Amino acid sequence: MVQRNQIGKSAMMLALLGDGLEQENLIRSLEKDGFSVTLGKIGTMESHKIVAAVETAAKKNGIISSEFYREEHALYHATMEALLGVGRGVAAFGAQLRTVGLRFSIVRGKPYAKPEEGEWLAVAFYGTIGAPVKGFEHEALGLGINHI
Amino acid sequence: MVQRNQIGKSAMMLALLGDGLEQENLIRSLEKDGFSVTLGKIGTMESHKIVAAVETAAKKNGIISSEFYREEHALYHATMEALLGVGRGVAAFGAQLRTVGLRFSIVRGKPYAKPEEGEWLAVAFYGTIGAPVKGFEHEALGLGINHI
Amino acid sequence: MVQRNQIGKSAMMLALLGDGLEQENLIRSLEKDGFSVTLGKIGTMESHKIVAAVETAAKKNGIISSEFYREEHALYHATMEALLGVGRGVAAFGAQLRTVGLRFSIVRGKPYAKPEEGEWLAVAFYGTIGAPVKGFEHEALGLGINHI
Amino acid sequence: MVQRNQIGKSAMMLALLGDGLEQENLIRSLEKDGFSVTLGKIGTMESHKIVAAVETAAKKNGIISSEFYREEHALYHATMEALLGVGRGVAAFGAQLRTVGLRFSIVRGKPYAKPEEGEWLAVAFYGTIGAPVKGFEHEALGLGINHI
Amino acid sequence: MVQRNQIGKSAMMLALLGDGLEQENLIRSLEKDGFSVTLGKIGTMESHKIVAAVETAAKKNGIISSEFYREEHALYHATMEALLGVGRGVAAFGAQLRTVGLRFSIVRGKPYAKPEEGEWLAVAFYGTIGAPVKGFEHEALGLGINHI
Amino acid sequence: MVQRNQIGKSAMMLALLGDGLEQENLIRSLEKDGFSVTLGKIGTMESHKIVAAVETAAKKNGIISSEFYREEHALYHATMEALLGVGRGVAAFGAQLRTVGLRFSIVRGKPYAKPEEGEWLAVAFYGTIGAPVKGFEHEALGLGINHI
Repeated sequence: MVQRNQIGKSAMMLALLGDGLEQENLIRSLEKDGFSVTLGKIGTMESHKIVAAVETAAKKNGIISSEFYREEHALYHATMEALLGVGRGVAAFGAQLRTVGLRFSIVRGKPYAKPEEGEWLAVAFYGTIGAPVKGFEHEALGLGINHI
Repeated sequence: MVQRNQIGKSAMMLALLGDGLEQENLIRSLEKDGFSVTLGKIGTMESHKIVAAVETAAKKNGIISSEFYREEHALYHATMEALLGVGRGVAAFGAQLRTVGLRFSIVRGKPYAKPEEGEWLAVAFYGTIGAPVKGFEHEALGLGINHI
Repeated sequence: MVQRNQIGKSAMMLALLGDGLEQENLIRSLEKDGFSVTLGKIGTMESHKIVAAVETAAKKNGIISSEFYREEHALYHATMEALLGVGRGVAAFGAQLRTVGLRFSIVRGKPYAKPEEGEWLAVAFYGTIGAPVKGFEHEALGLGINHI
Repeated sequence: MVQRNQIGKSAMMLALLGDGLEQENLIRSLEKDGFSVTLGKIGTMESHKIVAAVETAAKKNGIISSEFYREEHALYHATMEALLGVGRGVAAFGAQLRTVGLRFSIVRGKPYAKPEEGEWLAVAFYGTIGAPVKGFEHEALGLGINHI
Repeated sequence: MVQRNQIGKSAMMLALLGDGLEQENLIRSLEKDGFSVTLGKIGTMESHKIVAAVETAAKKNGIISSEFYREEHALYHATMEALLGVGRGVAAFGAQLRTVGLRFSIVRGKPYAKPEEGEWLAVAFYGTIGAPVKGFEHEALGLGINHI
Repeated sequence: MVQRNQIGKSAMMLALLGDGLEQENLIRSLEKDGFSVTLGKIGTMESHKIVAAVETAAKKNGIISSEFYREEHALYHATMEALLGVGRGVAAFGAQLRTVGLRFSIVRGKPYAKPEEGEWLAVAFYGTIGAPVKGFEHEALGLGINHI
């Protein structure tokens, strides 16, 4: 059961689970509760490509409008906050000779009981960060939440 | 099924799930694979109390030895990295008039296939961060991983 | 003339000008254009008191609602961003033996031409930062902007 | 009237006002009081180009000497502090897929009553930061002050 | 032999060597070359006490004047930069449950060949950082340099 | 005499001393006590080249194994911490129009009396940071320590 006020837990779960039945069930449950969901993947040393990948996925799948800055602003800050979790205080990976391979999820909807709290957005990343050598890496993740 | 190299995913799942059957099953599965696990909770405005709560739980439950600095050092850095995810770049909450309520998990074991990679440690937090007013908060989480 | 899309310039001007005719004229002009404005002052070594002073002023003067977290969340992030300008990368002053004396302004309204961009919020600080010795200080300022 | 100890307020005003009579009057007033002033503009995604633009403007207009490191060092730190206000804690924009369009001012002179306090330098930025899409941006500003 | 342009190396050496003949020789050599030197010690969890200890030592031993803000400003920034080396990116220790025990040195003089480069200041720290448990600590150090 | 628990002091000394008899004596003394030592140099504006130079030197000279991630992970974090000292809070230089010229040392061994504390690693940098103009630079240094 997805509780109303757990948009962040849901987004993190989607990124952790990866493709499969559990993920599909969670998406269905979220959509039934009125949330929009999209998923994506990105592997890179350049953090601006991660920002771009999230934005593109969000716009292509109608999570945010591509016509208004307001929604892009909300998504951008949620993405940067999630990246700070991945980088644990830094949000630039290549400058530090690190490469990341990340799955991400974006969830949009009304997580609070009071209708006046309106819509919020969660961005979650899960994957690996490490040296540019296969297997020389450990897991990393992050979550950012913003009102929209 | 807990894959060997997913100590971080497991730790994050434990913190996300909270008490219940799913959490118990995951703990059992991790312990069968040779991992040690402990859980805890902390609500505070002072980040040093979070560090202390994690350390106390780890020592009391035998996750790390309380006699050697080496293990405390590994845990400390994993904890600070996880806190940077919670604070999204900051690790001091009261100074910013924020209060946190967090569940945490600590998992220790051998996540890599090669035995020479030895033991690693994951610390995960999940909970809320917000104003010191009930309900004025959103979710936050973080994960730190270190060799031990 | 206050241009529509210059909520930040207006907020910074209000904080820079201080009490007087110029400030009053700018407030009147902003209110005529549909913006809400409030002003305040705070002198302290503890950054959480600055956050509290801005929040209290905003709620008491109806700039944000005190009933919904959403608006507090928007104000909080705008305030923290403005404080990072004052501290130039840090937002904790007492821990560094610095004291600040700040005027602040909060402006809320619709700065963009497209109505769908909705309401935004600007928080500006101007004052001094320095050693806890009279006159041992220089000016500092900051601006934070967020959608609401 | 430009008060002696408000080199930062003056620099910020110059950047906020932009070309026009008010700006010219402020420059004249500052120069009458013995301050040197220069102005410039820069649009970029790369923060090192902002540093270079400020330095070039300062040297070309005689605000700092190009022969001595001492003055470059003072200007560099004032510029970095002002950039931290623009980026609100970060001073690298392209890595985060943000582009900035900034006006800047540099003011040098004696802002303190005591002659022994000597010369100081203020660097102020005002402009916009946002996505690399026209109109998807909001205002940002920063101020850095240093002894020279 | 102390080379003219190695004020930082000299300050770091003084802090590393601790009391003894080698330290005395280095001080004598620096003083012969026109540098002023002072030393101190501080053990604490609160970073503002470190800032205060350095400032007090510098004023009591005539390294900086206590009458002018200009010199305090130069020392303050050199101290903060040295502390960032000790904390490796953070300059607040107690909030992270860390305690430090540090020796420090302050060196003032003309490190550059050109006389126009004037006086500079170096602050160096060397000691331990760790848990508030005896022996649970490792070494840490930092250096800050500024023009004065 | 190199005390057992001063792996950081030894590493910093090696970087400060540069080539010569004193450095050779210190290396010999460290090796007699069971420590491994390597030295290197790097001049660049790009921090990832510094990380790569340290890693290459460590692997080529057998300080860390190139087969296991565990040792690379320990070295990477020690290197990043030392770089934060050099950059005083930042670890990206070119983005800020700064260039560095650094000597570095890596020392590995058992610095604690208790054998259970095992092996640790120290990375130290010493050199200059400044504008890309000859002589427009001052000294900078940093130290990072990690268990391995």
